[in-house]
Amino acid sequence: MKALWFENKKLQLRTDISVPSPGEGEVLIRVKCTGICSTDLELLKGYYSFQGIPGHEFVGIVEQGPDAWVGKRVVGEINIACGHCADCQEGRRKHCSHRKVLGIRDYQGAFAEYIVLPLSNILEVPDALSDEEAVFVEPLAAALQIQQQITIAPTDKVVVVGAGRLGQLIAQTLTLSTPHLLVVAKSNSKLHHLGKMGISTATTEELLMQHSFDIAVDCSGHPLGFELARKSLRPMGTLVMKSTYAENLNIDASSIVVDEIRLVGSRCGPFDKALALLFEKRVCVDYLHQQTFSLQEGVEAFRCASQPETLKVLVKQS
Amino acid sequence: MKALWFENKKLQLRTDISVPSPGEGEVLIRVKCTGICSTDLELLKGYYSFQGIPGHEFVGIVEQGPDAWVGKRVVGEINIACGHCADCQEGRRKHCSHRKVLGIRDYQGAFAEYIVLPLSNILEVPDALSDEEAVFVEPLAAALQIQQQITIAPTDKVVVVGAGRLGQLIAQTLTLSTPHLLVVAKSNSKLHHLGKMGISTATTEELLMQHSFDIAVDCSGHPLGFELARKSLRPMGTLVMKSTYAENLNIDASSIVVDEIRLVGSRCGPFDKALALLFEKRVCVDYLHQQTFSLQEGVEAFRCASQPETLKVLVKQS
Repeated sequence: MKALWFENKKLQLRTDISVPSPGEGEVLIRVKCTGICSTDLELLKGYYSFQGIPGHEFVGIVEQGPDAWVGKRVVGEINIACGHCADCQEGRRKHCSHRKVLGIRDYQGAFAEYIVLPLSNILEVPDALSDEEAVFVEPLAAALQIQQQITIAPTDKVVVVGAGRLGQLIAQTLTLSTPHLLVVAKSNSKLHHLGKMGISTATTEELLMQHSFDIAVDCSGHPLGFELARKSLRPMGTLVMKSTYAENLNIDASSIVVDEIRLVGSRCGPFDKALALLFEKRVCVDYLHQQTFSLQEGVEAFRCASQPETLKVLVKQS
Repeated sequence: MKALWFENKKLQLRTDISVPSPGEGEVLIRVKCTGICSTDLELLKGYYSFQGIPGHEFVGIVEQGPDAWVGKRVVGEINIACGHCADCQEGRRKHCSHRKVLGIRDYQGAFAEYIVLPLSNILEVPDALSDEEAVFVEPLAAALQIQQQITIAPTDKVVVVGAGRLGQLIAQTLTLSTPHLLVVAKSNSKLHHLGKMGISTATTEELLMQHSFDIAVDCSGHPLGFELARKSLRPMGTLVMKSTYAENLNIDASSIVVDEIRLVGSRCGPFDKALALLFEKRVCVDYLHQQTFSLQEGVEAFRCASQPETLKVLVKQS
């Protein structure tokens, strides 16, 4: 089959990859559409020691598996858990210490014509959702993880630092929890979409005058974004960390103690809730989807996605 | 009056300090006993730009103030809030951005014969408590702040890194919330007190084999303690930060995000609850009190307190 292959810091199109065989409890999925996210781009910069087929945001059709599932259109949870370790037993399957992660860790991903996944990872996509919408379930779930981890009151003042792919979704989901939301970014170019939805926006320089937010979310992808989010908080405020950085963060820990700040690391979230929000049209993803490439043009798709102003680039297998 | 005075990186005994005059809403307190804590020692190392009389752990007798209070034995909340700013109005008086802090920030402290404090800061000490017990209310309140900030289930596995002055109190208060408590320190010398109370202890090297704690508390006073506490956590665990450090912390922020760790800065706590626990004899402070000096011998008292093996040193004014 055709797939994008990453090896020796280079991404290339290959046509000689074997179609994977589903094992016990697994399904074979024919991939229809795959999204490029920042993690994919970081992978290619060498931040993870990954080799093989990247891609974890996908929608596809079950080709082999239990009869009840064959032919169904699905999305899939990206963490493949062992099911036996302490974390799995205690209900933290996405934190399984032996986990593989679709297209990220020890598991071939979705920039391919076919993937396999455990049956327990997949969810059916309602007919009302297009492929181009359903492919956003994974990042939307990640955005929704914030409300799984912290309580947000409708009186809480919340600031989101960063308005990239994930920031756009986080802004849209947080505005469902509180009307007091501000989204900041370095430039206005990515903020105007949110402004049109009635979400308040500001540039990072404007934010520096304010230190009174109850909750700040850093999804800037940059240590300076963390710093800005930290400074925007009132004492006893909460900083949600959504970005991973290649380098370590240098933080003023004493100020965290003195101001009794809470930091919350946040990663993958609930697929079912993301599907429900998309189905109910409470989140708009159409404008995020800016360009489409074929799998054949996959390397070019990655080049396009790596431009700073680009939001979502999709690869369509069929 | 006599007082210890810190200036130009030097602590000295002075006998020429004026007795302070209580203003509107304030009381004059004749100090009976003052404890030396790590913050005092850090102050003297120049970590804060403080000049004047240090000391914030005290017990004393009200000498001037409302009739109902004169003659009463009291302890006092150390944060002196403005009462008007947004933090004060929203109930975060100890985080008042204009606050003064007894013996720490812009306010003369308790290594003196007299201090003044706002009436709203003081609490009466029950007769059943000795001065030597009551002087522990401030650090005990700081320990109890942990349970004010996070929920601890009796099934939670909790590790405390550090067994110094504050660590001892934190261990004793946490063991009231969960039987699954482990306290680690570099050496056994400070652990054996806790062992005698039935609290499990281990050296830091022994801890390195474990990565399964639900909650870790760093009160080691050292960045390595933070690192150890972090490593001991299961995914989605909580790290309570009780230590302030002179330097910045260099943290692997990506692992905080990927493991969805929660960090919680924690400072001063509830005086009333600390008084209640001491009164109910649920916490033992007697063994912590290792040496007593007169105010005249105050400089020597600080020298003694700065020895690594020393727990609590008290200064008695009368």
